[in-house]
Amino acid sequence: MSNLVHVLDDTSYVELLDAMASDLKVVNAARVSYKKKSLEMTPRDVKLIDFLMREGHGSPFEHCVFQFEVKAPLFTVRQWQRHRIASYNEQSGRWTEFEPEFYSPDEKYRQWNEKSYQEYLDRLAAGEPKERARMVLGTGIYTSFWFTVNARSLMNFISLRSGETAQSAIQEYSKALEHHFRVMMPVTWAAFDRNNRKAP
Amino acid sequence: MSNLVHVLDDTSYVELLDAMASDLKVVNAARVSYKKKSLEMTPRDVKLIDFLMREGHGSPFEHCVFQFEVKAPLFTVRQWQRHRIASYNEQSGRWTEFEPEFYSPDEKYRQWNEKSYQEYLDRLAAGEPKERARMVLGTGIYTSFWFTVNARSLMNFISLRSGETAQSAIQEYSKALEHHFRVMMPVTWAAFDRNNRKAP
Amino acid sequence: MSNLVHVLDDTSYVELLDAMASDLKVVNAARVSYKKKSLEMTPRDVKLIDFLMREGHGSPFEHCVFQFEVKAPLFTVRQWQRHRIASYNEQSGRWTEFEPEFYSPDEKYRQWNEKSYQEYLDRLAAGEPKERARMVLGTGIYTSFWFTVNARSLMNFISLRSGETAQSAIQEYSKALEHHFRVMMPVTWAAFDRNNRKAP
Amino acid sequence: MSNLVHVLDDTSYVELLDAMASDLKVVNAARVSYKKKSLEMTPRDVKLIDFLMREGHGSPFEHCVFQFEVKAPLFTVRQWQRHRIASYNEQSGRWTEFEPEFYSPDEKYRQWNEKSYQEYLDRLAAGEPKERARMVLGTGIYTSFWFTVNARSLMNFISLRSGETAQSAIQEYSKALEHHFRVMMPVTWAAFDRNNRKAP
Repeated sequence: MSNLVHVLDDTSYVELLDAMASDLKVVNAARVSYKKKSLEMTPRDVKLIDFLMREGHGSPFEHCVFQFEVKAPLFTVRQWQRHRIASYNEQSGRWTEFEPEFYSPDEKYRQWNEKSYQEYLDRLAAGEPKERARMVLGTGIYTSFWFTVNARSLMNFISLRSGETAQSAIQEYSKALEHHFRVMMPVTWAAFDRNNRKAP
Repeated sequence: MSNLVHVLDDTSYVELLDAMASDLKVVNAARVSYKKKSLEMTPRDVKLIDFLMREGHGSPFEHCVFQFEVKAPLFTVRQWQRHRIASYNEQSGRWTEFEPEFYSPDEKYRQWNEKSYQEYLDRLAAGEPKERARMVLGTGIYTSFWFTVNARSLMNFISLRSGETAQSAIQEYSKALEHHFRVMMPVTWAAFDRNNRKAP
Repeated sequence: MSNLVHVLDDTSYVELLDAMASDLKVVNAARVSYKKKSLEMTPRDVKLIDFLMREGHGSPFEHCVFQFEVKAPLFTVRQWQRHRIASYNEQSGRWTEFEPEFYSPDEKYRQWNEKSYQEYLDRLAAGEPKERARMVLGTGIYTSFWFTVNARSLMNFISLRSGETAQSAIQEYSKALEHHFRVMMPVTWAAFDRNNRKAP
Repeated sequence: MSNLVHVLDDTSYVELLDAMASDLKVVNAARVSYKKKSLEMTPRDVKLIDFLMREGHGSPFEHCVFQFEVKAPLFTVRQWQRHRIASYNEQSGRWTEFEPEFYSPDEKYRQWNEKSYQEYLDRLAAGEPKERARMVLGTGIYTSFWFTVNARSLMNFISLRSGETAQSAIQEYSKALEHHFRVMMPVTWAAFDRNNRKAP
């Protein structure tokens, strides 16, 4: 699987842009406490990660960082950006024109989205500023943003947003993030999963 | 002026719910460094606040906390909640039905808002879940939230959001917040204003 | 019990300076989601707090804020200030002279503390700057600071610092903080205690 | 210059362990707003970084992250860890024995440090737990920690800690951090320097 994973349709996506993350980094951050360093993962290191997760020692996981570009509907982004321990930069609806790209779960939504997009274009054509005209667009419209987040905060995100009480759209995004997390940090991911998917 | 200030129209508002904030608190937080305490503001204390502001010693201002309830359009709330050093709880569009309350700068927006609200009602009537039906609503729809914020982060908000590069709607909210800030912490407000409205 | 609680001896203390905290505030912050408000705590509200705690919905607890003045030994303050979601202002060892006040668990520590304090005074007398002379003082020396913290972060502190793996001194401070938390927010405290003292 | 820079003497150091940082990353994070991407730095990108710095648009700088290992005296670490927007893991004086490594600005400090270290060893020999025996050590004793920090928070650190009102020891560390920052992000560093070394 490439670094770009489509999520709700062929337009929306999660793309891993960069990362500074590995299980070994967690181990070495934790072993600073003991003035020790590992050069590669050993069975003892696997146990250490399990212990940190179970006992809620979250700080060693913060030294691993993921950087994503995301395209998602506004209503999902609203839920997303309530996560405060992360860095965001987002496409501006004040300075750029929205593309006619929407999350449309069925034909009726597609019709409404197209209608509202036409209304948006009409207002732009009439000279309305973008920042005002966008008010007519529903929250299914797609926007893009960068999301830089450490592994501790990412686990918190996944814990809350992949659960069944989360709305289905953000669950899909959470799974896409989790895919990258699992590939980069397989031992940490397994410990997280065993710990009832609770972030430390 | 009462604790509730209307902002964009007779529906939207900023209401000061509670506060733990005074100029004297800033002074006493700062004077912990010197093991001293003031019982009331003196001319020296006024100078101290000026000094803290000018030199960027922001931590003493963090001990003052404001608590607001806000009703604002979604597009404004999106800008608002990018401020991460604050606490938020917001009305849920997943579990409650939106009221037909919108920010409508002119008659054309009012017509579109009413049309989209009718679309929303139709979908609810057809059995669509609220979390999905809301996608048809434009971002002029009003939502309510609690906003608890310390004086340092509040000054940062006011600094960025009352300036002329901010969108006009959030400028109005920023002024309403600033009104409460100025009433509760007049000396701090004056120092902030003299410091080119830069947060320390 | 007054607002000031002595902790390790007759010198060290935790003092509640101010608070903006109640169980009802948690309930009303949470009910913003449902556009409802309680005027006093009902049995349903008690259940709501239990639910929030158990399900890890931590944000409503953030709207309650406690403000403490603390006098504690340096080695404890070092552990304390690793808690980043809080505001601190501390007595400066660069600008003020330390008092001969130490945590001395037994007579041998007292002797050493007095010896090192004499060394400190000698260096000050010889014209050494305070910021440098203080290096000879052991980490049992007392310092004072302001600590402003919301109830969510406070529960995290208590969860980690009152447990038996924490050092005994900070356990005592944690108990003193918990006393104030319990008095101000009895329903929240009981839910926290039932939830295995895990912060939401 | 290698990744490890000695600071106060041949024992203390700042070592760059890892980084995910470049000027181009800042530019591309900022250009998300405009749905654009640069492949290499152009003169226009240099101007953009200058603009972001001057206007206080700090978020694009947060997507660059530095990871350091630091060995520093306790009194410096106390100042350091007041910076809350960063991740830390530190050698534990509860679980490991301190080495006889101190910051000793002159012969008199060296003598006292050695004396206090002998006292520490005597107490360990007498069966005192490490967490208690360490109380006799002065705050010139060296400790090691990991410090992971984004470029925005790092600039804030440098701004406050390399200034002449900071204590001389932390000024030296700040310069060592700045060296790495300047090498990795030369355009950002130059803009920071031109902006009176104020963090955005």
